[in-house]
Amino acid sequence: MVFPVNTRHVNASNSIFTHLPATSGHFFSSTTSGQSSLSIRSHTCGELTCSHVGQEVTLCGWVQYLRQDLFVILRDFSGLVQVLIPHDESHRELKDAFSGLMVESVVKVTGRVRLRPEGQKNLNMSTGEIEVCAESLEVLNTCRRLPFEIKDFVKKSEALRMQYRYLDLRSSQMQYNLRLRSRLVMKMREYLCNLHGFVDVETPTLFKRTPGGAKEFVVPSGEPGMFYSLPQSPQQFKQLLMVAGLDRYFQLARCYRDEGSKPDRQPEFTQVDIEMSFVNAVGIMALIEGLLQYSWPEDKATISAPFPCMTYEAAMRDYGVDKPDTRFGMKLVDVSETFQHTQIEFVRDAIVQPGGCVQAICVPDGAKHLKGKDMEFLKQVARTQFNQEVDCMLVRAEGSIKSPLGRLILDTTRLQLLLKMSANAGDLLLIAAGAQERVRPLLGKLRLQCAELLEGRGVPVRDPSVFHFLWVVDFPLFLPKENEPEQLESAHHPFTAPMPEDAHLLYTQPHKVRGQHYDLVLNGCEIGGGSIRVHNAAQQLYILENILKEDPSLLSHLLEALDSGAPPHGGIALGLDRLVSIIVGASSIRDVIAFPKSFKGHDLMSQAPSLVPEEELRPYHISVLWPSAKNGQDDRP
Amino acid sequence: MVFPVNTRHVNASNSIFTHLPATSGHFFSSTTSGQSSLSIRSHTCGELTCSHVGQEVTLCGWVQYLRQDLFVILRDFSGLVQVLIPHDESHRELKDAFSGLMVESVVKVTGRVRLRPEGQKNLNMSTGEIEVCAESLEVLNTCRRLPFEIKDFVKKSEALRMQYRYLDLRSSQMQYNLRLRSRLVMKMREYLCNLHGFVDVETPTLFKRTPGGAKEFVVPSGEPGMFYSLPQSPQQFKQLLMVAGLDRYFQLARCYRDEGSKPDRQPEFTQVDIEMSFVNAVGIMALIEGLLQYSWPEDKATISAPFPCMTYEAAMRDYGVDKPDTRFGMKLVDVSETFQHTQIEFVRDAIVQPGGCVQAICVPDGAKHLKGKDMEFLKQVARTQFNQEVDCMLVRAEGSIKSPLGRLILDTTRLQLLLKMSANAGDLLLIAAGAQERVRPLLGKLRLQCAELLEGRGVPVRDPSVFHFLWVVDFPLFLPKENEPEQLESAHHPFTAPMPEDAHLLYTQPHKVRGQHYDLVLNGCEIGGGSIRVHNAAQQLYILENILKEDPSLLSHLLEALDSGAPPHGGIALGLDRLVSIIVGASSIRDVIAFPKSFKGHDLMSQAPSLVPEEELRPYHISVLWPSAKNGQDDRP
Repeated sequence: MVFPVNTRHVNASNSIFTHLPATSGHFFSSTTSGQSSLSIRSHTCGELTCSHVGQEVTLCGWVQYLRQDLFVILRDFSGLVQVLIPHDESHRELKDAFSGLMVESVVKVTGRVRLRPEGQKNLNMSTGEIEVCAESLEVLNTCRRLPFEIKDFVKKSEALRMQYRYLDLRSSQMQYNLRLRSRLVMKMREYLCNLHGFVDVETPTLFKRTPGGAKEFVVPSGEPGMFYSLPQSPQQFKQLLMVAGLDRYFQLARCYRDEGSKPDRQPEFTQVDIEMSFVNAVGIMALIEGLLQYSWPEDKATISAPFPCMTYEAAMRDYGVDKPDTRFGMKLVDVSETFQHTQIEFVRDAIVQPGGCVQAICVPDGAKHLKGKDMEFLKQVARTQFNQEVDCMLVRAEGSIKSPLGRLILDTTRLQLLLKMSANAGDLLLIAAGAQERVRPLLGKLRLQCAELLEGRGVPVRDPSVFHFLWVVDFPLFLPKENEPEQLESAHHPFTAPMPEDAHLLYTQPHKVRGQHYDLVLNGCEIGGGSIRVHNAAQQLYILENILKEDPSLLSHLLEALDSGAPPHGGIALGLDRLVSIIVGASSIRDVIAFPKSFKGHDLMSQAPSLVPEEELRPYHISVLWPSAKNGQDDRP
Repeated sequence: MVFPVNTRHVNASNSIFTHLPATSGHFFSSTTSGQSSLSIRSHTCGELTCSHVGQEVTLCGWVQYLRQDLFVILRDFSGLVQVLIPHDESHRELKDAFSGLMVESVVKVTGRVRLRPEGQKNLNMSTGEIEVCAESLEVLNTCRRLPFEIKDFVKKSEALRMQYRYLDLRSSQMQYNLRLRSRLVMKMREYLCNLHGFVDVETPTLFKRTPGGAKEFVVPSGEPGMFYSLPQSPQQFKQLLMVAGLDRYFQLARCYRDEGSKPDRQPEFTQVDIEMSFVNAVGIMALIEGLLQYSWPEDKATISAPFPCMTYEAAMRDYGVDKPDTRFGMKLVDVSETFQHTQIEFVRDAIVQPGGCVQAICVPDGAKHLKGKDMEFLKQVARTQFNQEVDCMLVRAEGSIKSPLGRLILDTTRLQLLLKMSANAGDLLLIAAGAQERVRPLLGKLRLQCAELLEGRGVPVRDPSVFHFLWVVDFPLFLPKENEPEQLESAHHPFTAPMPEDAHLLYTQPHKVRGQHYDLVLNGCEIGGGSIRVHNAAQQLYILENILKEDPSLLSHLLEALDSGAPPHGGIALGLDRLVSIIVGASSIRDVIAFPKSFKGHDLMSQAPSLVPEEELRPYHISVLWPSAKNGQDDRP
């Protein structure tokens, strides 16, 4: 696939194709594929090993270090290599050229690979056994400004990293993250397209606005008052593709969500979007397990399938959350029975309430490692985020308990409690009493906080190198609306099908209907969710109109489609940014996105969003409503 | 990768995972990969052949025909198969179920494959040697409404097709188009990622507005007056990725362009976006040739590489256009010399002008096939689109010429003209005199119009089944602005590097500088364009500031990046929609896009764009400027 320049027919002389090789000394690498194909280099820096000794190589890269005019460390995406600067008089000019180099300048070096002398090998460097004796040097570009050094150990502020993202991306960690992401996605495509017959279909991002879709960006069109919107997911399109008989669809779909300044969210993000016809939930789940196994990076801990599966009810009961991190215990335990005869008034009151309970978690060695201010912090979280009290009990060596409530607890209760919680000396018990809907999420939250606090004290709780996948299933199809609890809203979205044996309850007790929904959780993060969809038009209409009290005319095209021979179908969407960030162990999804926005939605490099003059808005028939007072706050550097 | 349901551990009974197989009779196909993996079907309709005779199969699909209660033709994406309805008394119920079926209903049929009786085989059907004897039927969904029949021969209006796109996509042509596109893209990714070490990097689509970027959609942010814009290409990001040392980037990039109602344009489109470091133009061109060869559909005429290469000047000279369709001749011929002593006043006047010329094309058999109204049409095109006169000369059998100018042309001139044009009896000559910049595009246009007219009369001119790729190179780097000809603008974009030997002319005669730009043309359509970029900050600044008279501070982040060790780099972008439409022979790119917009930018299915209430615009600090009078025009059905 590489064609020597002189075989290329050009209809006129003096074109770029006849001059280039002559004027710039460019040549093609002899390899017709690989990382140096079609390039002016012959090899990458990082690939050189003993096997190249004696070969002449041409390298292109950045000057990482220049040491005492003796050698240069050259860097490209693949790694570092040592280039020896010749010192004999015949190479005087070459030596001078090297010594004038500035760090991060871009050079082309030709030279011969040789073994480093014994004693000078560097086993910490993949190319540490060899060096390249420079024979020629071409400075391709200089580097004149550098707001920070391109060294992995140099700490930079997030704002500076974002402003100079093109420098930040030179770090080996960011190169690794972006390349791992690319490889992962490529393997996913191979699995879906080549192994399972999926069709990669692009769907529009200029779509119709969902009425009341407060999180949708609007895009003014050239028609007055008419707006597109940037969809939060291709949900309608993927279903319509199934109605269209496309059978198996997937897309790495760009999605948009305007959420203001939520931490670690991005206004645009990517999901692995999948939909299949003639499949059930078990089929989709097996597909995804296979997908992740197939595409899983080889240098990471292996994952085994099938993934464990937990009901929503079990997750809430044992972990107080619908996305449990199953890498560690500290499960919630209901100790209502233990306290049923308690003298402690507020505990008794709580139990007597309908849905009231006493629950606890046991933090192993918590009493040993957590300090008074940690307990205060936990109590503070309980109060501010859940409007709840929590009691911290330190289990002492002799089995006694240190707690404000300690003296109010009978010995039998105490022993029963310790037994039930499998608590040992040095453990910490966190106990809360109240309505189950509040106590569970509270203890679920405190469980995670305790893990973090312990890790902060050097106690390993969650192994960052293991990957615990978990399916959560049997979600309720509807939940009470937060502001009008007598009204139901979809737990996920209105297109999720009810469980077949619950379908009759739609018409009588819709709040009891479970959905054919499945969430995929990894190390306590929800990384995917999907469902079998409603494919019956009448059922979809009933759900929209009678249960959700929505205007079905807004979805008339979908309802018509379901009435036109819609196959049974279902799908899933995986959050790619989050998945990759967990795999590489990044603390933020910003570290797996080439050009992320700041938490305020700003691009700190190009300064987007920016002011647009009124006259440039005129074609869109909009004008800016300037608020009377400006509120400051900005995260630009 | 398929796990039997009973090995799945669920933490609670009565979940979807324990009931599904029991209640719905669903099962997994025994294949762990392929088009029926993880599905409730065992085979696709279209894959059944003699080799399946005797096997029990489960098919899912749509009822295509129902014939006299004897058999059903079942359709899925893979094709059609005949299902025999049993007629013995023991299958009474099954027979009744079949006879109640409506066309386009969705069914699951289990049955045994058998050879059709001799004489009943249908060799026009890929499954025409076999049929499936139905043993059970499950109606998965009914079809109640159908605005048009799903038969390939039923003609539908474009508006109806768009409104019911989910039905339109059921046609075998649209299924073919979308699947071919998906396969093509997959092969491209394999070539780039797996063979040449490219990294698939997603770049933002919420970006900073280009000042004066009239074709950029704006997206209001939550900050008053501040807007993102949807970029026309990831040009800046791909270059910044090179500065970041990413080395080889590609992306199937969604791009946006607000062009109002241009025919066969879409407000969002997809480009195969590529950028490489340490490469020259020849390298990029070889890469693209390899890319297209590797990914080219097997069922299409093969393409060979290297592709021919033509300079911009040669293209304009011979074809009157910078994207010549080289599938046919009818090249432009300069006949100024022939007419240098002409008596025809306006011809003489034209020649005398600076840059004046007489040029002609010879349309073989044009006089034979084209009618008087065709000539009138060509003259009309010349007048309205080019403000030029064109003379149509019919070459008669005896070598005489029929033309309004005929009697003004001397015999020697006539003979010289016929010789120079290689014109034969029955040919048509189109001659125009005037400034070269006008005559060339005019004749280039008429050349294409003549091809179309001849094809309309049944004369084959352009073979639709062959693929003529062509590189066009040596473009001028700058062109005079249309409205202020003394001012220069970029022929392509301001980041294209000058040809090295022309670089010194930047400072003296910038209009003479040629760029390191290359356009890829396929059958007369520009399907790609790229260049080697400016990687020197000072040169880029000079071009922006002194030649283009632009405010360089708007691109300060790019200029800073070039000053921070930018490698030499270049790239290309291929228009995927157009490329696929030419490969499949579609008349419009709408036929290779799942959910395209109408030529007015409307989604006729969901009715986007749509009105958004003022209160929902308030978070974005914008309000609608309603024009005083509404101008109607709408393409909604």
